[in-house]
Amino acid sequence: MTALQTLELTPVDACCTPSTVDTLAAEEAQQRAAFLKALADPNRLRLLSIVKAGQGGEACVCDLTEPLGLGQPTVSHHLKILVDAGFLTREKRGTWAYYSLVPGALEQAAGLITSL
Amino acid sequence: MTALQTLELTPVDACCTPSTVDTLAAEEAQQRAAFLKALADPNRLRLLSIVKAGQGGEACVCDLTEPLGLGQPTVSHHLKILVDAGFLTREKRGTWAYYSLVPGALEQAAGLITSL
Repeated sequence: MTALQTLELTPVDACCTPSTVDTLAAEEAQQRAAFLKALADPNRLRLLSIVKAGQGGEACVCDLTEPLGLGQPTVSHHLKILVDAGFLTREKRGTWAYYSLVPGALEQAAGLITSL
Repeated sequence: MTALQTLELTPVDACCTPSTVDTLAAEEAQQRAAFLKALADPNRLRLLSIVKAGQGGEACVCDLTEPLGLGQPTVSHHLKILVDAGFLTREKRGTWAYYSLVPGALEQAAGLITSL
């Protein structure tokens, strides 16, 4: 289970001071920030964009290196962050790994911002 | 004019390779990542949440320090990042500064994710 799947909107305890009632609790804020950090990188945004535009909603890792002008290890590093955060899934087929967008993941991340 | 106000969705040049047509261009990705970085911090998310829940949609800086358990300089640093990115406005009234959410800013940031 990814971090994105375990994230829930947790209510703030009623014992809080009036000024923080109904505002974001510390732990929840940590979880939301961790997701947004996974997105807050230009190379990772471009990777997500390329995967999203790929045929069948997926992209071979062999097609992800050249557009970014980065080395394979760097691209793999960014892809791993996106997989670990729950934005991409990875499937090995023969020589290559193929990446697909997790359905609803981008919308869920956007919701973490608008529901502040 | 804030960075958020100058951000526009720029089309990718037609000269790009097929795999990157209609995907996020490098400069646009940089701009989007810069915004998301402003949000990708638990203390800044909590500050936005407290301001949003404040009476009249604003909060005095004097009410923002205690809930976060941080020192005034640290809170001011985070507030400046949110103002510079275009998420908050700051108004000085007498001794204190008051912060308000920029209307539509959170929704615009969310749109940067869903429109990848």
